[in-house]
Amino acid sequence: MLQTIAWRGSAVRLLDQTKLPTETAYVEIIDERQMWDAIKRLVVRGAPAIGVATAFGVYLGVRGFDGDELAGFDRRLGEVCDYLATSRPTAVNLFWALDRMKRVSAETRKQGSRTQEQMIEKIKQRLLAECLSMVEEDTRICRAIGEHGLKLLQSLIESAGSEVGVLTHCNAGGLATVQYGTALAPLYVGLEKGVRFHVFADETRPLLQGSRITAYELQKNGIPTTVICDNMAATVMSQGKVRAVIVGTDRVAANGDVANKIGTLNVAILAKHFGIPFYVAAPTSSIDLSLAEGSRIPIEQRDPHEVSQGLGKQTAPADVDIYNPAFDVTPAELVTAIITENGVVRAPYEQALRRVCAGGIQ
Amino acid sequence: MLQTIAWRGSAVRLLDQTKLPTETAYVEIIDERQMWDAIKRLVVRGAPAIGVATAFGVYLGVRGFDGDELAGFDRRLGEVCDYLATSRPTAVNLFWALDRMKRVSAETRKQGSRTQEQMIEKIKQRLLAECLSMVEEDTRICRAIGEHGLKLLQSLIESAGSEVGVLTHCNAGGLATVQYGTALAPLYVGLEKGVRFHVFADETRPLLQGSRITAYELQKNGIPTTVICDNMAATVMSQGKVRAVIVGTDRVAANGDVANKIGTLNVAILAKHFGIPFYVAAPTSSIDLSLAEGSRIPIEQRDPHEVSQGLGKQTAPADVDIYNPAFDVTPAELVTAIITENGVVRAPYEQALRRVCAGGIQ
Repeated sequence: MLQTIAWRGSAVRLLDQTKLPTETAYVEIIDERQMWDAIKRLVVRGAPAIGVATAFGVYLGVRGFDGDELAGFDRRLGEVCDYLATSRPTAVNLFWALDRMKRVSAETRKQGSRTQEQMIEKIKQRLLAECLSMVEEDTRICRAIGEHGLKLLQSLIESAGSEVGVLTHCNAGGLATVQYGTALAPLYVGLEKGVRFHVFADETRPLLQGSRITAYELQKNGIPTTVICDNMAATVMSQGKVRAVIVGTDRVAANGDVANKIGTLNVAILAKHFGIPFYVAAPTSSIDLSLAEGSRIPIEQRDPHEVSQGLGKQTAPADVDIYNPAFDVTPAELVTAIITENGVVRAPYEQALRRVCAGGIQ
Repeated sequence: MLQTIAWRGSAVRLLDQTKLPTETAYVEIIDERQMWDAIKRLVVRGAPAIGVATAFGVYLGVRGFDGDELAGFDRRLGEVCDYLATSRPTAVNLFWALDRMKRVSAETRKQGSRTQEQMIEKIKQRLLAECLSMVEEDTRICRAIGEHGLKLLQSLIESAGSEVGVLTHCNAGGLATVQYGTALAPLYVGLEKGVRFHVFADETRPLLQGSRITAYELQKNGIPTTVICDNMAATVMSQGKVRAVIVGTDRVAANGDVANKIGTLNVAILAKHFGIPFYVAAPTSSIDLSLAEGSRIPIEQRDPHEVSQGLGKQTAPADVDIYNPAFDVTPAELVTAIITENGVVRAPYEQALRRVCAGGIQ
């Protein structure tokens, strides 16, 4: 399977996503400047993957510190974190990773050491260990979502003929995480167990993550895939080719409303019309119990040029109004079930989400 | 208002649609070779416009004939028609126009004349007159659809606030006809009468007729327009911004099923979900009473590269499967009403469509 991020002993290897879908190339990242650049240029993207990459960036930025005073090390750590924070300031997971690395440093400090030099060395080792445990954790969570999701699909798989058609939107796959992904995890786990899926990948305008990234990774990982324009989803559904829809999410509100890439709401409504289950794969870290409902989720408005000039050619009149929200909100009543690493939850979501976030269900 | 096709005394002036949306340029067509090229290269497109352009192509091809024998003229006419038929062999209106021109020639012959030379001259004049009456006829039909459609929207207009939001898909506007268009005709007629519309134009993947053509013509003709990606339709509908959907059609079956540009079915389902009326503008010439239902309408499958490379850049893995149907079929039960030049029809469509095709209603 493709690996988005891997630690290679002295460097981080990233799959260069700017080269997709035409080329499979890797880059070796050896310092924080290269990692800043990789995050900035979307060599690595997807919330979980950005988090892990950022953490490695912190380690790479301090590992070469050769002073022997803790104050100097702290300054360096602070500088590296501030610097990495500027690479993609809207990525929540980036700041989550920076906080986590700072906390590891602070906690290690509390344990004490004979000399400042030894302490510095100890912190460096703990920071690397934290990066590796983030890799492990992300992989484990995705894998668990995959197992729970596959179980959820079991009856559809049994009733389907030779192939189980699944539609997905955008990329909530392995390339947005360390491996496996969230929405695509049940398919990869299924593949290991011999289930034959066929994915219909919405191309996902305006940035085409579906055709550029999802189709690429599914194909590389051996799952048959058909790319469709977003507006063809109703047609493939009407032909009986889609047994289930599975998408990822950027944030789930306490009531089960789901924010995800623009176009998800369209797909959810179409799925309901055709009686097709609509599943959302959501690590519990994306469930925000502090938000009562989806209308509270702020929706980022993006550059209109992504729509009118996104592919190198002007495709709308120069001065026409363009609406380009990055996300939409699918109301809970359109969501058949939410798949987390702790198990699958269904409506009524209020209680179920609280339980699953506390580690309940399984 | 923009004029797609205009007779300028000795040449046909076409708005060059290959230059859209960035440039408003016209070309003067003086012979059948130039018209062949214009149809082939999509300088002129849209079924009704292609029909009229083809008819002019026939006239331009024979007007210079300077022989004095009818047999020679007939040969020439046949050659010109055969030649034009190769410009875009899948365009039904092209063949309809060729047949019409041949029939005019044959009927004029029956009337007799003193000399063959006079007869040739008479036929030439009748062919030009037929072109001009096709221009007039197309304009009149579109205008009538506009009047009936505007009446249909009256209650929505009255209940709306300052602006009446309408969503459309693809281009069924003036640039697909001589003027006015079909789906956009009610908006243009409304504009003349002081109604303030605001159009949400689906960009319409893969060929982007919505952002390239519809947004261009609406803006040029003075109707405020917002371009959206196809997958944003549900969001703007959920925000209450859309009072009605109006689309065109390629063919309506006897039971009211509607074939139109891929993505129309998506929009119809979303409109139903949000309780928004879904209207289809259809000249009676597009109603095919010989087809019992929509499933009988053949759906053209188009080149996958339109999806993966349509914008000059590879946006999907080179060898991935791509599904690219040109049209979809919206079942009659999702169609609130069909607007024809003879009036508006509603379900049950079977009888109503037969009546309107016979010239009934008004």
